[in-house]
Amino acid sequence: MTRPYNFSAGPAALPPEVLTEAAAEMLDWHGSGMSVMEMSHRGKEFTSIIGQAEADLRELLAVPSDYRILFMQGGALAENAIVPMNLLGNRHEADYVVTGAWSIKSQKEARKYCSVNIAASSEADGFRAIPPQDTWRLSKNPAYVHICTNETIHGVEYFWTPDLKSAGLPDTPLVADVSSHILSRPMDVSKFDVMYGGAQKNIGPAGLTLVIVREALLGRALPVCPSAFDWKTVAEAHSMYNTPPTYAIYIAGLVFRWIKGQGGLAAIEQRNKAKAETLYRCLDESDFYRTQVAPACRSRMNVPFFLADERLNEPFLDGARERGLLQLKGHKLVGGMRASIYNAMPLAGVQALVDYLREFERSHG
Amino acid sequence: MTRPYNFSAGPAALPPEVLTEAAAEMLDWHGSGMSVMEMSHRGKEFTSIIGQAEADLRELLAVPSDYRILFMQGGALAENAIVPMNLLGNRHEADYVVTGAWSIKSQKEARKYCSVNIAASSEADGFRAIPPQDTWRLSKNPAYVHICTNETIHGVEYFWTPDLKSAGLPDTPLVADVSSHILSRPMDVSKFDVMYGGAQKNIGPAGLTLVIVREALLGRALPVCPSAFDWKTVAEAHSMYNTPPTYAIYIAGLVFRWIKGQGGLAAIEQRNKAKAETLYRCLDESDFYRTQVAPACRSRMNVPFFLADERLNEPFLDGARERGLLQLKGHKLVGGMRASIYNAMPLAGVQALVDYLREFERSHG
Repeated sequence: MTRPYNFSAGPAALPPEVLTEAAAEMLDWHGSGMSVMEMSHRGKEFTSIIGQAEADLRELLAVPSDYRILFMQGGALAENAIVPMNLLGNRHEADYVVTGAWSIKSQKEARKYCSVNIAASSEADGFRAIPPQDTWRLSKNPAYVHICTNETIHGVEYFWTPDLKSAGLPDTPLVADVSSHILSRPMDVSKFDVMYGGAQKNIGPAGLTLVIVREALLGRALPVCPSAFDWKTVAEAHSMYNTPPTYAIYIAGLVFRWIKGQGGLAAIEQRNKAKAETLYRCLDESDFYRTQVAPACRSRMNVPFFLADERLNEPFLDGARERGLLQLKGHKLVGGMRASIYNAMPLAGVQALVDYLREFERSHG
Repeated sequence: MTRPYNFSAGPAALPPEVLTEAAAEMLDWHGSGMSVMEMSHRGKEFTSIIGQAEADLRELLAVPSDYRILFMQGGALAENAIVPMNLLGNRHEADYVVTGAWSIKSQKEARKYCSVNIAASSEADGFRAIPPQDTWRLSKNPAYVHICTNETIHGVEYFWTPDLKSAGLPDTPLVADVSSHILSRPMDVSKFDVMYGGAQKNIGPAGLTLVIVREALLGRALPVCPSAFDWKTVAEAHSMYNTPPTYAIYIAGLVFRWIKGQGGLAAIEQRNKAKAETLYRCLDESDFYRTQVAPACRSRMNVPFFLADERLNEPFLDGARERGLLQLKGHKLVGGMRASIYNAMPLAGVQALVDYLREFERSHG
């Protein structure tokens, strides 16, 4: 069976191997006589599933032992409130670096709980680049500094990690929304204090939120923080304070194992580099298409691009669909097109898109 | 294939027809070339899935047009905080009726946001019955009155609906945690102002929370309420403020359609009555087993029972597992056994349990 190539920004394509295994096990997981959906979360079957998922994720990302991995709900948008509720403690200010639509949302939600200092913003530049750290104006003693390391909508990605120590804030937690590029390459978790993200890009189905938090930061939640979103409560209950999204965690576990089978994150990074280079090269070679993001900040996961003649947008999308290239329409905030090429997108899919880009230019250029 | 009978209290058994359809569509939903897990939540495919699910649920429960149906995340435990954050407005007190472990948790969480008046409690009686409304001591002007209409752990169920008008509180919202018996029978939604529940009993997979709320109550959220949990925000975005748990909603939609195919809630209620009567009758006929709940308050969904000789608990559970009768161990708060017999449990499963109960008594009595 040939499946179409699905360039959705999320919920996004999953490895067919994962879906095939999930389908085969749907009515009977490993001889248990139950679907994973039907298992008590406290039973030995599901306990082994979540334990293996966490262990595999810890191995893949080399999560240090003083970090806790939490499986939560609500997505990054809920976490935008949960972060300040868990980290403000007695402080009243947090710093945000704004690099696109997602960090705009994060800082806006934080204003419910504290005053926000925008330490840097690339808005005036149309979010084409990440402001270098030496331009950031950090506060004197913020509760934390928040960044979004890959902006799904604007297509900019950090290929460096801010160093708050060198900025005179050695004890300030660095918090990153990593939703749309986690597991796309190795990341040094120890350089962050909190990483969080919705699962629906490189991890699994929507409805699961991953939080990786330095253990020393637990226990600071504001009294108004719902217990189900107090990281300490969640950590102490091993992500089972409330019933976790069991099936989504199971699928995430299958994805983690798939990544290990692909050779781990170093191998995944090489594939993702090759995919991104192939696509950006094609876009760069032509005046028929254009991109806006500065080359050093181009996301390897989310590639927004434009047809120079926007009247051709609909014919472009129609032709793409006919060729089995799905969900290429850009986000309404940016317009144009966007190809999201997460881990589950094979190089062959990017090559098929590149072939179509050239063909469409030939026939319409 | 003979599947075991799964008496889990939740996540619970799903109809095999639903699982079979989900497995068949896992890699390609209706010729879309995508798994439902891989679809953009804003695309036409998923929009049709969530729209149909909501329409079917509205039809099944006869939800009045001035009520909104919200698909959320976090389960009933998160909703225990979300309810006061959405309903307190300028008030500082709410009334709770405590009838078991779940309403205990609800009132405890509410204390983060307001003072709580326990209008009635059956705790002194060991949660064996629902306190009649004429014994409730409601406050003069509470922000709302909260009940749990089916206590999953203690096995008590309301077969009547409180009438706050007759109690002199005609404008006070009645809020019900309906997690573990919604869709088990028709309910008059118009007699409630808010109904909420985790999906993992009669609706679908864990990770989906259903909220049915009278539209006039939207817009009262406290400033500290995360946007993703502000019912008004969620309603205005048609449950897509944040990325919804798309796959769980899809499964819920299949379950709703399955219930319609079974004849709707009136037919489902007859089946559930027959199942519960079969099981309770067997337990009542013997001194080898005992139950604690007053007959008028016995839950049709969750049936806790005890072996008179608790030393036989382990042999009983071992024998049950051998016969394909799974997850019968009682909750640790109550001990003993618990058979949860939600919609997906056929009468044949209850009959198999009854046969085993008699057989075990014969061989160990």
